[in-house]
Amino acid sequence: MDDVPDDLMTNPRADRVRAVHALTTRAARRRTGTFLVEGPQGVREAVAPGGPPVHDVYATPEAARRYDDVLAAARARGARVRLGDEDVLAAMSPDAQGLVAVVALVPTGLGEVLAAGPTLVPVLAHVRDPGNAGTVLRAADAAGADAVLLTRSSVDVHNPKAVRSTAGSLFHVPVVTGLDAGPAVQALRAAGLTVLAADGAGDHDLDDLLDVAGQAPAGTPDLARPTAWLFGNEAWGLREEDRALADAVVRVPIRGRAESLNLATAAAVCLFASARAHRTRTAPA
Amino acid sequence: MDDVPDDLMTNPRADRVRAVHALTTRAARRRTGTFLVEGPQGVREAVAPGGPPVHDVYATPEAARRYDDVLAAARARGARVRLGDEDVLAAMSPDAQGLVAVVALVPTGLGEVLAAGPTLVPVLAHVRDPGNAGTVLRAADAAGADAVLLTRSSVDVHNPKAVRSTAGSLFHVPVVTGLDAGPAVQALRAAGLTVLAADGAGDHDLDDLLDVAGQAPAGTPDLARPTAWLFGNEAWGLREEDRALADAVVRVPIRGRAESLNLATAAAVCLFASARAHRTRTAPA
Repeated sequence: MDDVPDDLMTNPRADRVRAVHALTTRAARRRTGTFLVEGPQGVREAVAPGGPPVHDVYATPEAARRYDDVLAAARARGARVRLGDEDVLAAMSPDAQGLVAVVALVPTGLGEVLAAGPTLVPVLAHVRDPGNAGTVLRAADAAGADAVLLTRSSVDVHNPKAVRSTAGSLFHVPVVTGLDAGPAVQALRAAGLTVLAADGAGDHDLDDLLDVAGQAPAGTPDLARPTAWLFGNEAWGLREEDRALADAVVRVPIRGRAESLNLATAAAVCLFASARAHRTRTAPA
Repeated sequence: MDDVPDDLMTNPRADRVRAVHALTTRAARRRTGTFLVEGPQGVREAVAPGGPPVHDVYATPEAARRYDDVLAAARARGARVRLGDEDVLAAMSPDAQGLVAVVALVPTGLGEVLAAGPTLVPVLAHVRDPGNAGTVLRAADAAGADAVLLTRSSVDVHNPKAVRSTAGSLFHVPVVTGLDAGPAVQALRAAGLTVLAADGAGDHDLDDLLDVAGQAPAGTPDLARPTAWLFGNEAWGLREEDRALADAVVRVPIRGRAESLNLATAAAVCLFASARAHRTRTAPA
């Protein structure tokens, strides 16, 4: 039935296959300056206009037929497209679903982000779980954040699980990694952002701040202003020294008997509160 | 140094060990009417006053010393406490962290939930990922939900991963499982709740509804009223027939380029919006 293409990769132990699989490790990502995007949905977002340089796309013949528009977009972006059989794609990644891309890591600098006049910027400090980091990045994109910053001690957002969890938002929102929290917060403040730390024991109730957004009295942070949010580790929250960097510490009000919120949940509620407050400012009732 | 207790379980292949491990399967949970709670944090929540009957607690000698308060609470609740070595606990569950509990599945009926006059009730329809279901349950607890309902086709929230994701909230909030969406929605409406479906293509913007909460014009759902939220599958959202059950379909406003929100993120934003609207009603500015 189907012709086998002449150049079909069929050796799952070939050097090139191993090199792609190695991108699941941070060391290989650093060494090559590339990362791995797995599955049709992720590759589609990666090759969309405006995305990072795409080096290679690997597809099974079946995936190549089914996602010919994705492959055409990849070629238009200058990517080399190669076919491999199912064993080859599976050896590249157990989450390949027949299609992966090797994409350039394009570092964004904090200066570049601040020069654009951001109004909503989450900062992840010591976030360790790749799924959490990716989910926060996706929520930040949806809330209209201008960038996502990660401190040096946080998980690598180019880890495959993190990339999957962003559901494409990694290609929509500039991400700055490897920051030291202190200087980053200073730079955000100097750029005119109010710096709020999210913490279950915060002095300010998020709902109270929403009530006075746009007209907060002196000494009360105003959510209508440009805001950077500091979010801490999923297990132990923000460290005291990181909390101390903020202009104010804000708690999401907890009404039931839950002791705390999942990090990604708390971050989403805070970011969408800011988005709501910013909307109020631009379109007052 | 340490004495080895006489009755220390040391055979990881013993019938009792296998029976505990079997609770990772739905079939065994149904057959025995019990489920497994893993790790010190979860067991602590399970044995707290007001929780479900606790049949057995298994601990390594080290965990028994470290969490002696948890074991005392378990004994006070009538649980049998047994010691096992690390191999035994690891055979019971890779996520035991030295401590597990076998807890009774106490079914809650919808009638019982409705009789208590609930004002905030999420309904999960076709939610398949245990981590998502557990995270929504935890967020629902934090937002002050009165119960969480799951349709027949949803994941079993007594699945170990779901139990872990609830971070104890499974023991705080009544959970009703195995429902048919249609009759459940009818019963919720008959009990005076407005039924809202969360969907990216909803007619109503959540922020617009918050603006008019407590004074919504005719034809606009009022978030200040008692509300049930319908949330759909993580990949394909609510089915048309489930959406059609609702009084209105509501979208979380998406500002960036994200195509959609993670289910747990969307649910958290909706539930905290309701909690905010209910707060406004009870404590007007």
